[in-house]
Formats: sequence, structure tokens, C-alpha cells
Amino acid sequence: MYPYVSFMQNKLKIINDPVHGFIKIPHEILFDVIEHPYFQRLRRISQTGLLNLIFPGATHTRFHHALGAMHLMFTAIETLKLKGVEISKEEEKGALLAILMHDIGHGPFSHALESMLMDDWHHENLSLLLMNRLNEQFNGQLSTAIEMFQGKYHRKFFNQLISSQLDVDRLDYLKRDSFFTGVSEGNVNTQRIISMMNVCEDRELVVDAKGIYSIENFLTARMFMYWQVYYHKTSALAEFILVKILKRAKYLVSQGIILPATENLTYFLYREKGSATDEDVERFTQLDDNDIIQAMKLWQKSEDFILSYWCRCVIQRDLPKTIISSHPFEKEFIDDKIKHTNALFGIDNGHELVHEIKRKLLPYDTEKQPIWLLQKNGEKIKLHESEDQLLSGLMVNKTTRYILTFPRNTNIQEY
Amino acid sequence: MYPYVSFMQNKLKIINDPVHGFIKIPHEILFDVIEHPYFQRLRRISQTGLLNLIFPGATHTRFHHALGAMHLMFTAIETLKLKGVEISKEEEKGALLAILMHDIGHGPFSHALESMLMDDWHHENLSLLLMNRLNEQFNGQLSTAIEMFQGKYHRKFFNQLISSQLDVDRLDYLKRDSFFTGVSEGNVNTQRIISMMNVCEDRELVVDAKGIYSIENFLTARMFMYWQVYYHKTSALAEFILVKILKRAKYLVSQGIILPATENLTYFLYREKGSATDEDVERFTQLDDNDIIQAMKLWQKSEDFILSYWCRCVIQRDLPKTIISSHPFEKEFIDDKIKHTNALFGIDNGHELVHEIKRKLLPYDTEKQPIWLLQKNGEKIKLHESEDQLLSGLMVNKTTRYILTFPRNTNIQEY
Amino acid sequence: MYPYVSFMQNKLKIINDPVHGFIKIPHEILFDVIEHPYFQRLRRISQTGLLNLIFPGATHTRFHHALGAMHLMFTAIETLKLKGVEISKEEEKGALLAILMHDIGHGPFSHALESMLMDDWHHENLSLLLMNRLNEQFNGQLSTAIEMFQGKYHRKFFNQLISSQLDVDRLDYLKRDSFFTGVSEGNVNTQRIISMMNVCEDRELVVDAKGIYSIENFLTARMFMYWQVYYHKTSALAEFILVKILKRAKYLVSQGIILPATENLTYFLYREKGSATDEDVERFTQLDDNDIIQAMKLWQKSEDFILSYWCRCVIQRDLPKTIISSHPFEKEFIDDKIKHTNALFGIDNGHELVHEIKRKLLPYDTEKQPIWLLQKNGEKIKLHESEDQLLSGLMVNKTTRYILTFPRNTNIQEY
Amino acid sequence: MYPYVSFMQNKLKIINDPVHGFIKIPHEILFDVIEHPYFQRLRRISQTGLLNLIFPGATHTRFHHALGAMHLMFTAIETLKLKGVEISKEEEKGALLAILMHDIGHGPFSHALESMLMDDWHHENLSLLLMNRLNEQFNGQLSTAIEMFQGKYHRKFFNQLISSQLDVDRLDYLKRDSFFTGVSEGNVNTQRIISMMNVCEDRELVVDAKGIYSIENFLTARMFMYWQVYYHKTSALAEFILVKILKRAKYLVSQGIILPATENLTYFLYREKGSATDEDVERFTQLDDNDIIQAMKLWQKSEDFILSYWCRCVIQRDLPKTIISSHPFEKEFIDDKIKHTNALFGIDNGHELVHEIKRKLLPYDTEKQPIWLLQKNGEKIKLHESEDQLLSGLMVNKTTRYILTFPRNTNIQEY
Repeated sequence: MYPYVSFMQNKLKIINDPVHGFIKIPHEILFDVIEHPYFQRLRRISQTGLLNLIFPGATHTRFHHALGAMHLMFTAIETLKLKGVEISKEEEKGALLAILMHDIGHGPFSHALESMLMDDWHHENLSLLLMNRLNEQFNGQLSTAIEMFQGKYHRKFFNQLISSQLDVDRLDYLKRDSFFTGVSEGNVNTQRIISMMNVCEDRELVVDAKGIYSIENFLTARMFMYWQVYYHKTSALAEFILVKILKRAKYLVSQGIILPATENLTYFLYREKGSATDEDVERFTQLDDNDIIQAMKLWQKSEDFILSYWCRCVIQRDLPKTIISSHPFEKEFIDDKIKHTNALFGIDNGHELVHEIKRKLLPYDTEKQPIWLLQKNGEKIKLHESEDQLLSGLMVNKTTRYILTFPRNTNIQEY
Repeated sequence: MYPYVSFMQNKLKIINDPVHGFIKIPHEILFDVIEHPYFQRLRRISQTGLLNLIFPGATHTRFHHALGAMHLMFTAIETLKLKGVEISKEEEKGALLAILMHDIGHGPFSHALESMLMDDWHHENLSLLLMNRLNEQFNGQLSTAIEMFQGKYHRKFFNQLISSQLDVDRLDYLKRDSFFTGVSEGNVNTQRIISMMNVCEDRELVVDAKGIYSIENFLTARMFMYWQVYYHKTSALAEFILVKILKRAKYLVSQGIILPATENLTYFLYREKGSATDEDVERFTQLDDNDIIQAMKLWQKSEDFILSYWCRCVIQRDLPKTIISSHPFEKEFIDDKIKHTNALFGIDNGHELVHEIKRKLLPYDTEKQPIWLLQKNGEKIKLHESEDQLLSGLMVNKTTRYILTFPRNTNIQEY
Repeated sequence: MYPYVSFMQNKLKIINDPVHGFIKIPHEILFDVIEHPYFQRLRRISQTGLLNLIFPGATHTRFHHALGAMHLMFTAIETLKLKGVEISKEEEKGALLAILMHDIGHGPFSHALESMLMDDWHHENLSLLLMNRLNEQFNGQLSTAIEMFQGKYHRKFFNQLISSQLDVDRLDYLKRDSFFTGVSEGNVNTQRIISMMNVCEDRELVVDAKGIYSIENFLTARMFMYWQVYYHKTSALAEFILVKILKRAKYLVSQGIILPATENLTYFLYREKGSATDEDVERFTQLDDNDIIQAMKLWQKSEDFILSYWCRCVIQRDLPKTIISSHPFEKEFIDDKIKHTNALFGIDNGHELVHEIKRKLLPYDTEKQPIWLLQKNGEKIKLHESEDQLLSGLMVNKTTRYILTFPRNTNIQEY
Repeated sequence: MYPYVSFMQNKLKIINDPVHGFIKIPHEILFDVIEHPYFQRLRRISQTGLLNLIFPGATHTRFHHALGAMHLMFTAIETLKLKGVEISKEEEKGALLAILMHDIGHGPFSHALESMLMDDWHHENLSLLLMNRLNEQFNGQLSTAIEMFQGKYHRKFFNQLISSQLDVDRLDYLKRDSFFTGVSEGNVNTQRIISMMNVCEDRELVVDAKGIYSIENFLTARMFMYWQVYYHKTSALAEFILVKILKRAKYLVSQGIILPATENLTYFLYREKGSATDEDVERFTQLDDNDIIQAMKLWQKSEDFILSYWCRCVIQRDLPKTIISSHPFEKEFIDDKIKHTNALFGIDNGHELVHEIKRKLLPYDTEKQPIWLLQKNGEKIKLHESEDQLLSGLMVNKTTRYILTFPRNTNIQEY
């Protein structure tokens, strides 16, 4: 029925994945969720937003990531079973469904746009909301999955596999983003890390002590991916511009200016704050990256200089200048850039084009869901307290970087 | 200036590529062309059309392919130089520019749409037209490249590297499409093939005889990619649907029905046959995949059943059934499917939804640009006439497959 | 207890493998066999003989290959189970043990030496003999494995997985040899091929029809590996020289000449034809590549010119010349080379240094264990009779190549 | 002439390498050195000693590593040239020859054996000694290479590329050892690191500042490789046993006991301390791993319990127990193990079988050849003093681990 999976005799279905090889879909209900339009929408939402402006290979989607994370969950469950952890069919389905749907409420592009579209809504809330809707359509078959997703299921390790400092979500996105960007520094050894997973006292996800270096390697790989890819100054800039564009558009609309856009995007430009209505949800599930790109293509010609400036930056990839520092920039320096910008373009709101963007990262959080090692004597110990650790103890502090963006002199050129 | 390249001291610029590692941009003019909006547009045109419906990883773009092909051209030139073939700076630039721009006239999605939008225009004509426009803007710096592209340059091997049965275009797209689809059967050894390239009599591209198995492997890999990926029955279907949608939309518009679409797409829906005007070209260079996807999203709700049916098929990935055969289908069988379709949907134009799609492939063409081997004695011989060949002589016949598509019973479900 | 495996909680043991990732050892008895000296000996027997003279990376061992094949067997069994084929724990163990031990009787270097050492013994006979010895030591735990290995077990597909045209032995060695030689043309997609395996009528190994191109790709990959690697003219030469050296040594010994060698090798140099005695077996299990290499190092200084010539060829990698042809060489041409050799070295037995080596390959045997496809209608059909096949029907004929070796003029140089 | 290289028209020769793809040999003299018996001997010396007991894939050789390092040197030189650093043909040849020969004096197995065989000789001294001998044979063509190797050449960056904290030797062995062991944590991005190399003031090797994370990733990868692979407790054990075996053998020989061994190894067992004689050198260049393995096979049956015990440990891979700690072991604990060992085997020299092995690592040395970053302003700064560094400043302290080995109860079993 669905030609992108290979229907094998006796029901085993597989999907090609250049990252993990082949992804098996071991239960019918998983397949039913995958074919639902809510999930198919993820095909049109890129995994890494505008990162492809910097890393042209990064055109992969949330759809593929969700499948990949499900694959890793399946591998983790198989490993735990081989180690004697009892996991029922119902639990297996629940865990696979939960991770499959963990991003189902994701909006267009990065997280950054969510608040623009749905105010203070976080995509995990939207995911939950959509999961509940699906659960109705599937007659309650997703209930265990939803419990696990929310952390309400009594065996906590299922939730830890879905969302913690060492969950299959992170394992998949690091490996996948590393693969598609070509930044090999982030290529974590998911196979080995998962083979080292275990469960302690039937509830806590732990890692066999001998896997410590693979875990530390995972933490450093993640840190490098953040600073080299996700928080790369141009990545940070691109994400920032997207938010600025939506903010500006909402502002202009609030001033009575009419902006061309698709019907659904227009709806959200005019939407007032407040809890999500049925129409909100309905329209949200029809929104994807294309609505935003199409809008930016059109708004390049907007009469509002700020809006058209940012849109041209993205569509023509003619990006403003950025400089990065480990200290905040001096107010005088910023003011000077604003003055220069005003002069350059003959405008008086140059401050809209000059910004300090801040990015910070805590490579390893010792407090919130620490990673536990299972020692040979059967006792567990926190990763950074193990005498074998080489780097974990050194990665417990936040790093902050400041990125200043301002127009470059040549930024106004027209072809 | 362009943050996605790493500006190294002394001008060497590199771009990340998961397929080839790193791509160097060795000349300033290459970089200038890359940053031109004509070229940046290729970021929004997928390399393999709707193939990601079948192979979810295949979201890569024409932009990346063009850079990859340029990289292979650079490698080929370096190899030839090491073998004593003299190549001037001007020729090197020309060859790199020509391959960089070879797809610059590519329309949205696959080649299939070109004729819908621009009648009988072929994207190579459009590429040439756009190259000439760019050449004006760059004060004639692209003249040698254009000569090479057209096959007018006196040293023919440059054109053979750009367009022949063993050109760097094919080498890149096979390897790249294999990489992103995860279909490893198409992973050709570009490094080895290029290392075996040579030039005979200062004009003919040849392959050192000892590279014969790599060449045969390349030909079989290509054949497998065609039948397993490009001509996969669902790939063929998806491409076919796209064409049907555009055709139907043009038909409806010609009947006076108004269809929502972006301004530029609308322009082409109404465009009459005829040679390309300046406005045609101007608008064409602003068209990309997003215009088509957006239209399909909107047209799902069209009152025309045929149009809305096809659009829902794509957007919700709820595809009709296909069966494949090495023989044409019987007329009775097809008629029966049409009758069934009419009954299923209560329509009388079911023949619009039932089609036989034909795909044929000649794995190796012995006549048009045959591949030449350079033997130890310095003489050249045609690949399939070498006594060492294992398969080439067997791949000189066309294979044809027939794919019949018709609605499946469940295709009308609504969520 | 065995530090090269990672003992995980609850018994799961894994071994690093750059080819397949990680190899799990799911049963205790497998581990017991691995640690037996008979099996540990395989660490000192290279998988591809002297191929590393041509492909320096090919230093991998029979030990690693046996583990890799066991890993693929495990994957195949898991896949078949997911497709509903019932396989008992006893059968699983049997199949894993059988493939693990399939090469346990392998002698030093390639198959070619076996007949030199043990006359007409084939390594599969020796393997069986050693399996039976092990079975005694392990109290009959290997009985099912031995039945499967011999093809006596009633469910034939287990034997087909161990030894047929599409067995896990071939899958592993092609992928592994491709990996270590760096000849990517042989990199078969084992994961996909195995995912397409199935069982028909509870006894016959079949491949789901949709996997046809992967199977054809496997057959062409194998063919390329033979002509590019195993039957590469220098590979064929190296294997030939090894046999010549042993033959010459046995001849010299039979003439009363004393040759230095390890005790065990000496034993085999003097051994008369006849069925294997206990001492034969005992000594054979202590022989490995090192005995042969050490002998060649010593025999470089032999007073017999022929013996020392061949030994220096290998140890100093100063190989004689080879030419390859698809036709046998003319007798006159060969005689001329012999005359030249006699003159070059001032000897009269130059015919010992001039030889025609013959290699032939049947890429796909339609008669002996043909590959069966399982069609959608549940019926099976032979691969080369399927209407979908692209190349199989073309690979049913033998190809033969003739390689002539003779000394090169510079071959006598001394440093 | 040498069949393992592909002779292409016009002299370009290539060698297959699964790690780097293909290795080009761009100068005739390189090829002449490669074919010399001194260099061919490296084919029989494993790159990582007995590491294949723990990581079965690690059977690669010094020969391949030397070629790989030469390849990286070639890449580095090409990159520097593209950045405008002038490098003459003579210098290029010198640098390539120097790195090609850097390990030519390497003895069998690891560095550990060198002192056993040649007393206080270090393999770099032996390398230099052999280089000088070769230089005579090649009429002084290696003089520049030798100058560079010794650090006497005026442009220091050549020596830094050969031997420093960021030399191509390390880049190759980390990537290669990671590849063959399957420990992906050590897979450094050599291509990117080299593309970031530069030269400052025509003498100092520096790294463009934007490459900082790749350098830090290289340093952490190296650290992980040390603790996970090279200093893995079983690796440390295996290396330790080798030394013990040779030491014991020399002791027994000094006591008048006769041990079977090859003539050359016997020579070194009896050799007295003192500067290297011509015979020493001559015999040394004929020694390789096979001499040692053969001796261990024979010495398994030695009447000396200690010697036979250790030899059986290696050959049968029946290794003693090890425990690891970050603190030295208590004397009482060790004494207890010795007592237990004496009782177990009924011997009185159990202290020979119980040992504390110590391993320490300084991940980054800030003093000796620090790594310099080239900042945008053209000034250089030490890596760990850059404000962008994330980890370097944390890796400046030594880590030490203590490994205690003692026999396991089951260690005496016989098959």
C-alpha cells in the first residue's frame, strides 16, 4: 500500500536510511501513525532549519529524524532484552510510538519560530496535544506511549530513553546532523553507546561502566556540534533572522499593513495571544517550511525596508556580517554600528539591523538527569564522580558566546 | 563575505560536503558565480524531485550537485596534469565554470516539468541562455566555459568531461544520489575512475586500460540505480503525477477556472507557446520547488476532482497503486481499471487516473560517445570491443518496463 | 575472563569489527569454541594469503572472517524469525556454531597449500575432522552444527546459509575483502540482501522477489572481486609461487637435501601420502602462516637456485613479470622465455621459472544450487528465469584468463 | 614493474588504501625507497603489536602506515602551496622521503622490544642509521630528507609536519588505528585538519584559528584512543608480556640454557650491550614479527615455567587477569596475589607473574612544541591560550593508571 516501504513476506517493512542502514517497522500501529497526515507533514519541515545555508548537505527532515530515533529505540530495547530486562510487547510498542511522535508538534523551521506563531507554546506541548488527538483516532492505542512521553509511566527508563541527557533523540540527531552536514566531529558511535545501556533496579537507565569513554566521547562530540554547527555564528544568525522576519511581519500587520502570505500563515500573523483553539491546531498542522519560504520570497519586495532586507538576506543568501566573542560587545561599538547602518541605508531604524545574539551551552548537566554508570559491583555512580572519567568533570560549566551582526557595506547590491 | 565557506588565509575557500569530504573553490570567479541569485536558486530545487517520497534521505539539491561535479572536475584536471596533459589556467577555469553552471537553467523538480512550463524548452537551452546572461554581467569571463559547454572548444575532452557517457556530471549524481537514498548499489568509486582518466592525441578523453573493471562497475551501478531508484515504479509514478498536475492545472486555467498560485507560477500557467521573452526568463529564475509544493497544498481543495486527487496523493503521500511488467498491459485490463475507477469515485473521467507509464534504459550506448580505453601500446580501443570486458558487451541493449497506475480502493479516505 | 570481549552485565559479549560494527556472541558455547586453541590458530592465518603484496591493507585473518560470518548468520536468523519462520534455540546455536567453525581446518595461507601439505585433503574435510574432535571435547554440543554443515539436517536452508551461491560465508568474505583491500567494487550490501532472505516450504532458502537487483549486484560485485582482486594477475602469481616453493622444497627433501624449517613444517615436508593420522592432525593444528614465512626467509639463502629465487621474490617483493591474455600463450613464445631465462641466469632448468597460470570463473551457476526468488504470488522461480533479471541471464558462462610469468631482467639484483 | 602499484600512462603510480582511498607516489625516488628490502621488511611488522588480541581487525602494518603518512604529507604540501607557501620540488621530495622513512628502524612489534634487542637504542636512532645507509646507496638523494627528519633544515615547519604534537605521523596512525580496530572514537578528520594548516613567517607550522574545534577534537580523539585502545588494560598487558618473554629468554640464555629460535633472534638473545656493529644492523634488518611469534610458539614447551606460561598466554590467548585503578595498588594486596600464585602453581617465583603496570598520558603538552593558531589579524597564539578553546586548557595535566596483572585460577588448563 505504501510504496516507500518494502513490503516483505510476512509483514516486515523496511525504509532506507543512509545513516542507520535500514529501518524496520516492526508493528502495524507504527506504520499507521507514519501514514497519518500529521506525521507526513514532517517531511516538509527541515531538521536543522536554515543550517543548509552554511552546510549545503543539511536538507534532511524531521520525518527522517523521527524514524531514525525510532530505529535506535528498537535497538536499545533489543539490547536490554538480551541483557535480561523484561519488556512486554505493549511497552515496546509504547516506547517506539512515543519516540516516533516526539516531534509531531514541531512547527516550521527551528524551535525559534514556535513562539512567534503560537506565543508561548512549546513544541512539546503541541506534540502532546496532537498525540492526544491521534490517540482518539486510533482508539486509545497510543495511551502507553503518551504516558511514557510525559514521564508518568512507572518504569522511568522508558522516559529516560525518550528524553534525558542520553536519550535516543540526541543520539539520532547528533549522528544524523553530523552525517548530513559532513562535520565528522559529531559522528557519535550510537551502536556502541546503545550496546552499553542497561537498566538498574528495573527503573533507572544506566550505562555499563566500561562504556565510560564512549559516553564522554558523546558529550564532547555534542559540545563540538553545538559550537561548530548549531551555534556557528552564521547558524545563529540565520535562526535569528527568521525570528526577526516573523516578528517584523506581525508588527507590520498589527499596523494595518497587508502582507502577501498563504492563508494559514496569514492566520497566524493575525492571531492574538491565548490558548490554542481547534482552528489553531487545525491550521497549525497544515503549516510547514514552504509557507515561510514562500513568504520570504514575496516579502523581498516589501516596501518595509527592514522586512525586505532580512528576506533578501536569506533568499539570496547575502548575509550580513557577524563577529563572535566570548565577552559581550561594548555599547559604544554597537552604537557605532547602528549609526553606520543608518548612514549606509539612509534610514533611522538601523538598530533593527544591528543585534547581539547570545548562545550558551552547558555540555553536561550534573543535576538534571545525570548519567549513571553501572559498576561491576552492581552499584551505580554518577558519571562525573567516577574515578575513570577523563573529561566529564571538566564539562560541567556553561560556555557563553556573543555574536554581533550588522550589515556589510556591499549588502545592498542588486543583480 | 559568505560565511558558509571557510575563508582560509590566502584565499583558499572550502565547503563541507558529506559525499566528497571538502570542496575547494580554487578561483574567485567560481565564487562570484556561486553567490549569484541564479545559482543560489538551485538551493531550492531538489536534485531528485519527489524521490524523497520513496527514499526519505533524498532531499539533496541541485546546488550541492553542481558543487560536487565541480569538485570532481577539479580532481580530474589535477590528475590529467600529473599525467603530463598541459592545461592552462584559462582552460581550468573554463572547465570548472562550465560544469558549475551546467544545470543553472534547471526548473523546479525534475526535467518532466520543464516542458509544462516552457513548452518544448529543454533545461540545457535554458542553462545556455542563463550562462550568456551571466557572461554579460561578468564581462565575458565565462566565454571559454560556454564554448566548452557547447562542445565548440577545440580540445574536445573538456566537453567530454562535462557531457558524455563518463562525465563528471554522472559521476557526481550517481555517487550523491546513492549516498542520500542509502541505495549502496550505486556507490561508484569516483576517485578510482578519475585516477584512470587520460587524454589521447591531446583531444580525446580515454581511460587507462587497467581501469576497465571500474568502468564496467560504473556502468552496472548506473543501471541498478536506474531500475532501483530513478525508474522505481513509485518514483516513475511520482514524476508522472507532477506532470499530470501541471497539465491539469493548465487545462483548467484554459477553461477559465481560477486556481490559487504564486504570481510567477500563475504566469506560466497562462503562458502561451512561443520563444522565451525577457519576462519569461526573469520569472523563470524566480521559480523553484516551493512554488509547486505550495500550489499542490492549495489545490488539494480544488473543486476539480482530478486535480485535488493527484495533489492529495503527493501531499499526504497517499499514492495510487502501481504494477510493473516487462510487457505492455492489455487494453482490456486497462479499460477494466478505468471502469472500476469511475464506479469507485462516481466520475466519468476515470481514464485521467489510470495510466501506463513507460521507462526504458540503454545501459551503454556503443554509438554515441563510446568510452575509449587506452591500451599499453598507446592505441585506443572501444570499451565493448576490448577482449578484457566482462559485461559491457552485454549491456548494449535497451530494457523497457511498463508501469500501470490506478487508484486503490482506500485512496479516498479522509482523516 | 577474556578481555577482548566486552563482558556486559547479564552475559552479552561483543567484539569490535570495523566491517560490521559490533559482533555479539549470544551463546556461551560459541564463546567456548572461540577460545579453543584450534580456533585461536585462525588468528595466525591470513584470510587472503599473499594478497597483501598487492593490496597492503589485506592483512585480515580467517579468525575475523569466521566471527563476521557468524554475525551475518545471527542477523539472517533474526530476520527470518521476524518473518515468521520458526527457529528453535537449538537450531540457532547449531547454525551459529556451524558457520563459526566452517574454516577451522584451514591450512596456512590459501587453499593452494593444502594439497601440498596433506595431499588430496580439502580443508572442508579437515574442518569436519576437527569439528568432530571438538564435539567430543564439548560432549556432543556440536552435533546439530555438524549435521547442518554436512547438509544432513532436514531443514536444508540452514545448510544453504552455510554453503551455497548466496551463503553468509560469501557475504562476509566479499564485504570484508573489499573493505580491507580498499577495492570498493566488491562492497556488497549484506544488510539489504539478508533483509530480503526468506524460507519457502519450511526448507528452501529464497529471496523476496523485490530484492532481485541487490542479488544481481552481489553477483556482479563477486565477479569484479574475482578478476580485480583474487584473480588479479599478481595475486594469481603470488599464490602460484607459494605452491611452487612448497613443491620444490618437498622435491629437494626427497632428494636428501636438508632444508631448515620449524619442526612441524619439516614433518609435513617429509610426510608420505596416506590418510590422516593422529599425529598429522595434531601437528597440522600447530601450523600457521608464520611457519611458511619463516621458511621462506631462511630458504632465500638455499643453494638451490629455483627455491631461493622464488623465496626472494616473495620476501623482498621483487616479483617476476606477468602478462595476461584471454587466450592460451603460443608454445613458441613460452619456449623463447625459457631459453631467455636459462641464458639470463646461466641455468638449465629455466622451465621451472616460466609458467602459464590459468584462472576461470563462472559468475553464476544455474545448475548447482541456483538462487530462488519468492514471488508475490507465493511461488518460487529461479533467478535467471525471472523476467525482471537484468544481468543474471548474461552471467551463466565461464570466463577464462591465462597468465604467463617469467623472470624480469632486473630480478637478480642484490642490495 | 611492481604489480601492486597501478602504473598509469605517464608515470603516476597509485596504491590502494582503505583508509585514505588511493595513495599516489608522485616521485620516482619514493618508489625506489619503497622497493628496498629495508622498507619491504615493514610489511612484516604490525603497526600495533599484539593489539589484535583485543581488536581482531588491528592486523595492519608499519608498511601501510608509512605510506599513509606520506600521503598526508603530500596533501599538506598541496594545501600549503594553494595558500601561497612556496615549496620547491627538492623540499617536497625531502619531506615525502623523510616521513616515508620515519619508522624504517622499527623493530618487531612495539617499541617495547627495542630496548630488549638493542639495549638503549631507540627506533629513531635506528631509523636515522638506516636512512644514512640508504642515502649512500642512493647517492645522497636522501640528504634533504635526513636534514628535515633531524630538525636541521632551516624551514622548521617541515620537521614539525614530521614530528610534533600535530604531525602527519599522528594524523595517520590515529585514523588508521581507529579504522582497523573499529574504535570510531579515534576517527580524526585528517582532511579538515590539514586544510586548516598554514605556515607563519615562513618557518612555523600553524593552524588557521577557525580550525580550533577540529584541533581540540583531534586532541580528545587521541586521548580516547590512548585509554580505550593503546592503554586498554589488556593492550598494556600484552605489551608487557612481550617484554617479559624477551627478558626471561635473555636471562635463561645467560644462565646457559639453550632456547630454540631463528638464527637472527638467537644472535640478539646473546648480544652484549654496546654500540651497534655492522653485523647488528645487518641482522636487525632481517628481524620481524615472525621471528618473535615463532619463538613464542616454540617456547610454549620450554621447561622454564615462567617462559612457557607467558608464551602460552599469548599464543593460545589465554590471558592472565588484570584490574585497573587510578591509584597504585597496596603492597599487601600484591603480596597476597604472589602468595596465591605460588600456591596455585607450586612455584616459588610467583612474583614473576604478578606485576603492576603503569601508564600515563599528557593529552596536550603546552611546553614542548605547542600548537599555534593563526588569528585573522595575522598574529599567532598558543592553542590553550585562545579565548575560543573549549577543552585544550583542561587537557594539560597528566593522567596515570595502574594495572595489576596476576594469573587467573583457570589459567593452567590444557586442551
